[in-house]
Amino acid sequence: MGSLETERTTTGWAARDPSGVLSPYTYTLRSTGPEDVFVKVMCCGICHTDLHQAKNDLGMSNYPMVPGHEVVGEVLEVGSDVSKFRVGDIVGVGCIVGCCRNCRPCDSDNEQYCLKKIWSYNDVYTDGKPTQGGFAGSMVVDQKFVVNIPEGMAPEQVAPLLCAGVTVYSPLNHFGLMGSGLRGGILGLGGVGHMGVKIAKAMGHHVTVISSSDKKKVEALEHLGADDYLVSSDAEGMQKAADSLDYIIDTVPVFHPLEPYLSLLKLDGKLILTGVINTPLQFVTPMVMLGESISLTLNPYIDASLLAALSITGSFIGSMKETEEMLNFCKEKNLTSMIEVVKMDYINTAMERLEKNDVRYRFVVDVAGSKLDQ
Amino acid sequence: MGSLETERTTTGWAARDPSGVLSPYTYTLRSTGPEDVFVKVMCCGICHTDLHQAKNDLGMSNYPMVPGHEVVGEVLEVGSDVSKFRVGDIVGVGCIVGCCRNCRPCDSDNEQYCLKKIWSYNDVYTDGKPTQGGFAGSMVVDQKFVVNIPEGMAPEQVAPLLCAGVTVYSPLNHFGLMGSGLRGGILGLGGVGHMGVKIAKAMGHHVTVISSSDKKKVEALEHLGADDYLVSSDAEGMQKAADSLDYIIDTVPVFHPLEPYLSLLKLDGKLILTGVINTPLQFVTPMVMLGESISLTLNPYIDASLLAALSITGSFIGSMKETEEMLNFCKEKNLTSMIEVVKMDYINTAMERLEKNDVRYRFVVDVAGSKLDQ
Repeated sequence: MGSLETERTTTGWAARDPSGVLSPYTYTLRSTGPEDVFVKVMCCGICHTDLHQAKNDLGMSNYPMVPGHEVVGEVLEVGSDVSKFRVGDIVGVGCIVGCCRNCRPCDSDNEQYCLKKIWSYNDVYTDGKPTQGGFAGSMVVDQKFVVNIPEGMAPEQVAPLLCAGVTVYSPLNHFGLMGSGLRGGILGLGGVGHMGVKIAKAMGHHVTVISSSDKKKVEALEHLGADDYLVSSDAEGMQKAADSLDYIIDTVPVFHPLEPYLSLLKLDGKLILTGVINTPLQFVTPMVMLGESISLTLNPYIDASLLAALSITGSFIGSMKETEEMLNFCKEKNLTSMIEVVKMDYINTAMERLEKNDVRYRFVVDVAGSKLDQ
Repeated sequence: MGSLETERTTTGWAARDPSGVLSPYTYTLRSTGPEDVFVKVMCCGICHTDLHQAKNDLGMSNYPMVPGHEVVGEVLEVGSDVSKFRVGDIVGVGCIVGCCRNCRPCDSDNEQYCLKKIWSYNDVYTDGKPTQGGFAGSMVVDQKFVVNIPEGMAPEQVAPLLCAGVTVYSPLNHFGLMGSGLRGGILGLGGVGHMGVKIAKAMGHHVTVISSSDKKKVEALEHLGADDYLVSSDAEGMQKAADSLDYIIDTVPVFHPLEPYLSLLKLDGKLILTGVINTPLQFVTPMVMLGESISLTLNPYIDASLLAALSITGSFIGSMKETEEMLNFCKEKNLTSMIEVVKMDYINTAMERLEKNDVRYRFVVDVAGSKLDQ
């Protein structure tokens, strides 16, 4: 019953050890199964999580590891049961490539909360083999975890939407915060935060950026279109802004007290933590959700008396359904990301710069335009 | 322009200093204004907050202070503009007797969150005089803060509903958790918690009591009608109950980590903190909501990664509208509280016993049946 087919391989850039330095690595891809889509990678965004994973910040990295989970590519082949995609389609792949399909989250189109979800890389697929991400020539992905990119959208513009974009869109959708006229806050102006400003503005919200310094004030107001800018250490400004926001999307991935931001919320306002997406924590969510303890926690703290009629809640990337909706929304609103496109041989420098927040606001690797074996 | 009327006085039991010991105290009541209702107190529940206030646990008590904010009484006189009440009506008064009527919370029937609300006692009324509570012969209260008690309800049974009852009813109403078939948790089984079990059961919920020990297990299951009982230190039981609850009403008024309880919630579940109601914190809410810091905080801590699609929120007593709805609901469901009725001269002993949680589950003082000047 052996197969005579030659094994299919691809070349990506992999971290080999906790130094996190990436270098070319050639590995096997599975054959295109009935439900699979074989995708030639065109470009892939670099997210903070890639950095943490590559460097084993969580202590659960397996090497060699090809990171990358903001993937845009072209369909080269589809399995016999794939009806949603055709050869030549431009498609996207995000953080997740598998789920159990049989739990409460899976049954309600919230598969990102499935406890058996499979990450795009640094995880083990159903065939027992390691998953590898988008800094590579190609990927084989189950059609459930592939989305069509609406026609006319530039691939490199779309890449950051597949993680950073949906991370912002999902909570606004999930918590009923899509209506125009709302007043929103975006806490932290990195990859996720900048998409937050753009998406919230496109929904017709009044958007205040809240930051620890005024370094990004001009950019936020003039380039991203924010309506207001608040420095969190400016007591007078914070006081003036008290009781003014319907929601705050908190994108800060490190410890910070929540009280100052809660005070900015109106009655029934929501503080939505998404910072986890940019930290190793996203990869331990299944464990902590099962009640096991884990030493690497954020521990923001709260004062219960502040919570009267406010909510602190969290949101974790978004579902495939929301990813599709978000892409259509961005297409309709002609919404773009602010990116710096680099070639693969620049990726280690890009990762270093990302660590220092030296990017406005997302690196996207032009994978197809790079020679991957150098 | 002087008045020839004799000043109206009443006798209550007041704390005189931070010992918190109550003794008879006679003071002036304002004349019945156009919007006022003059109420003869029949009975009044004892809440933990009364204890904290009497003992100056918050450092903001003014003496002499007549506590009591779960008041049931009979209308003796109504002002010229009062249409809702008539002499002889049985009415209730809760925690609040004033608000600004002109802010966002006031405009949306959430006057309990008004920053200028006036507490039933240990506060200053619009006439510049101290407010005094329900452990007294009578009170004069603005009609907005008076509710009709549905016919046929026993006054002493109703008293605990006016604070403990609405504290549970309000979040279930506010957050859309009234439907039958929901699975709820009640964390802590005191005055608020026991009403939580009864009200949630009356809504048709499956109710789990979560407690730090198994001391109240039999009572919870057999007398209060809870469906399940979980000891928070029982790791196996907690693990089995993971991902099973739509909400938890957290009535614990002291520091406690929230993670163990978050793990019990289903996707989109809500952890609703109400513990503040039984601590001095309720009296500083306006201050902390304005962003000022305060040293007496609860500081439960959270791990952001646990929050994916869960909410931690707070609820603070309830609105007058919700108080009315809650009373009608309890009447319709024939719902009673579990109380120990005492005379006024027992109140100091009752307060001592309350401090030791030695009551099942609420003391109610039979004020009308007590001699107040002894």
